Amino acid sequence: MRMSRYFLPVLKENPSEAQIVSHRYMLRAGMIKQSSSGIYSWLPLGFKILKNIENIVHEEQVRAGHIPMLMPTLQSADLWRESGRYDDYGEEMLRITDRHGRDMLYGPTNEELITDIFRSHVSSYKDLPLTLYHIQWKFRDEIRPRFGVMRGREFYMKDGYNFDLTKEDALHAYNRHLVSYLRTYERMGLQAIPMRADGGPIGGDYTHEFLVLAETGESEVFYDSEITDLRFGDRQIDYDSVEQCQAVLEEFTSRYARTDETHDEAIFAEVPEARRRTARGIEVGQIFYFGTKYSDAMGATVQGPDGKPTPVHMGSHGIGVSRLLGAIIEASHDDKGIIWPEGVTPFHCGIVNLKSGDAEADAACEAIYGALAALGLEALYDDTSERAGGKFATMDLIGLPWRITVGPRGLKNGVVELTSRRTGESEELPPEQAVERIAQIYGRAAPQA
Amino acid sequence: MRMSRYFLPVLKENPSEAQIVSHRYMLRAGMIKQSSSGIYSWLPLGFKILKNIENIVHEEQVRAGHIPMLMPTLQSADLWRESGRYDDYGEEMLRITDRHGRDMLYGPTNEELITDIFRSHVSSYKDLPLTLYHIQWKFRDEIRPRFGVMRGREFYMKDGYNFDLTKEDALHAYNRHLVSYLRTYERMGLQAIPMRADGGPIGGDYTHEFLVLAETGESEVFYDSEITDLRFGDRQIDYDSVEQCQAVLEEFTSRYARTDETHDEAIFAEVPEARRRTARGIEVGQIFYFGTKYSDAMGATVQGPDGKPTPVHMGSHGIGVSRLLGAIIEASHDDKGIIWPEGVTPFHCGIVNLKSGDAEADAACEAIYGALAALGLEALYDDTSERAGGKFATMDLIGLPWRITVGPRGLKNGVVELTSRRTGESEELPPEQAVERIAQIYGRAAPQA
Repeated sequence: MRMSRYFLPVLKENPSEAQIVSHRYMLRAGMIKQSSSGIYSWLPLGFKILKNIENIVHEEQVRAGHIPMLMPTLQSADLWRESGRYDDYGEEMLRITDRHGRDMLYGPTNEELITDIFRSHVSSYKDLPLTLYHIQWKFRDEIRPRFGVMRGREFYMKDGYNFDLTKEDALHAYNRHLVSYLRTYERMGLQAIPMRADGGPIGGDYTHEFLVLAETGESEVFYDSEITDLRFGDRQIDYDSVEQCQAVLEEFTSRYARTDETHDEAIFAEVPEARRRTARGIEVGQIFYFGTKYSDAMGATVQGPDGKPTPVHMGSHGIGVSRLLGAIIEASHDDKGIIWPEGVTPFHCGIVNLKSGDAEADAACEAIYGALAALGLEALYDDTSERAGGKFATMDLIGLPWRITVGPRGLKNGVVELTSRRTGESEELPPEQAVERIAQIYGRAAPQA
Repeated sequence: MRMSRYFLPVLKENPSEAQIVSHRYMLRAGMIKQSSSGIYSWLPLGFKILKNIENIVHEEQVRAGHIPMLMPTLQSADLWRESGRYDDYGEEMLRITDRHGRDMLYGPTNEELITDIFRSHVSSYKDLPLTLYHIQWKFRDEIRPRFGVMRGREFYMKDGYNFDLTKEDALHAYNRHLVSYLRTYERMGLQAIPMRADGGPIGGDYTHEFLVLAETGESEVFYDSEITDLRFGDRQIDYDSVEQCQAVLEEFTSRYARTDETHDEAIFAEVPEARRRTARGIEVGQIFYFGTKYSDAMGATVQGPDGKPTPVHMGSHGIGVSRLLGAIIEASHDDKGIIWPEGVTPFHCGIVNLKSGDAEADAACEAIYGALAALGLEALYDDTSERAGGKFATMDLIGLPWRITVGPRGLKNGVVELTSRRTGESEELPPEQAVERIAQIYGRAAPQA
């Protein structure tokens, strides 16, 4: 993308309404614009990152054998009356009346709707196990929306639902989700720690929240420091293997890690003092096993192997997709701006032309831009006539992890500059080698020698 | 995808509520499920096709130089009061009151919101031309939703908005959209004819609707039969070229083609009688140029080259993404079911195992499935124990354009059967050649000999 043709309305000043760094930087980097309280438009740069995050979530869900679909944003109140949650949910549920006077609502979650789909179409245990998920806009009418996309009203969320014949099968689904979530967050450059959680309005005996440590987190968390040494890495997991998924769950949840909601001082005290940590965390996901709560209430049964109707065991599992943009920024930034992990960056690298209009500099930039594109790598090429300082400031603010700087002086020596946003370190090298390095970083085939 | 692990709830019987073939087949093929009047869940098969269509729309928009972003579903009523449309829009607009008593609405379109974004961030003619678009769920509270996704209440739509300094520039944007829409529809296997249309509530002197001819279309259309011989084909267009875009517009709009709203018997009579056609059509898109209607009302001006504030010239452009599934089915089906064009098919081919459990048949199917996957081609492999007739009926119903049938008898002679859904013609050939043929059809590299 050429900057001269992009819509990237960066702000020079800190917006006064933003209290936390992710909100501030998302506004300043031209990623979002508030359209009304807690509701945002995703400007081109923000939308691109949102899509990258969504794609990672999709890929990892499909890898785990979960099936994508899509439920609508608006739901009939009838199903919620059937589950008993219509009255329970309180003022956070946005209630709507249509032109015929029917009660509707903007879905804050989808247990009722998915259970209705299940009971309409599945009648035999032979069709189990089944896990369906979708990524869709949700609405919660927060009384005081704040922190930008971190606690907005209209938000984008992945929610998945497993249907199993037995509690054992459903707990395997629970473990499988935990594993796939660990992979998902790591691909985004995040360490999200599974912590024992509270069921809340969804209910459930088994539930873990995934928390990213950050000073601005809304939850106080308590954990054994050993847990932050764990990495999922690139291990190959057979998601059908009960043993393998169980082993990962045990590895990642056997150490103490709880939020203030479930914190227990007595158990925490058993952790050696040197490893006891208190910090703040941002919740980026949660998994639940809630047994037959909804299948009992809504008659979601299958014919079991014994021929008898059996209510299915269910769980639900959520990832806050739009909120993740905020969480990643909270975890990865400096005083110049955002630092995107390679896994989610909106552009693979930036190209700064120090002297737009100079024939040689322009040609070198175009050549680099084209060579990257030929490798399937997308650069944001600042081809404008802004001064160099402004171009650097914008690149630093929007946080592309790599930058290639091209100027007449370097070109005279046959080199450009490759700079890491994270370390700030620069290296001079011939343009072709800079392209090769970027290709290597992103695991793309290097150009022919 | 293995059928045994998929969620494909096909119906044997015709659902009584469906009046038109696309609605009937979408329900029977397990693509959608109504959740409330005019509101649908997209089951896995339907969601997959919706995504394919969305991807084509994105790709062609980006090719034309338009910039993707995303606006929220809910909007504040204030902006609509500013444009004067809040009271005009009538009962089709779903009006909502939030917990603080503020007036909101579920966006039926986005002229107001995008104009607000534009005026907040763009102040100079140097930042023009600019075309922003998004693909987002919309809501129109139809008094009598019908025909499935063709006239639903919650629907998925691409809407784009161009901002230009002059009328001439805005008309180039108009032409550019016409060109990109022609390409978009053809990639989906559709012929969509641009017809002179009526501005309606959006307003606009220049507007064309795109109509797909189909017996069940809601509009009566009148056209010169020469128009159906036109193909966009694979011509290369420079979207920046005013001349090239103008030439395509002239080629595709110079012959008579109008809906009943703009039909003029006197002009139609000038078409040679043998070429005069009356038919029915489904609207799948519309483009508008409406000048400074919104920029005047909402103060969207830029500083012109003369230093004076100048209201921008705008247009808006829509493609009915969810409606397109219905339109494609109306245009492409037979009495056994849907026939997906290759461009949008949910799976590249089906594999029917005539004798699941037979070691040789199973192994041959797995080999074909794996060979296709290695080429980036996705098969739906019916590995269930259903009888052959049922498997064929399901494949015909869901409409995959190609099917490979594998059975012990053929394998004895070293062959499988490759069948075209469209023609019904079958051919026996060795499994590797069947894979090669599928690869050729979809333009993927054939496997090494």
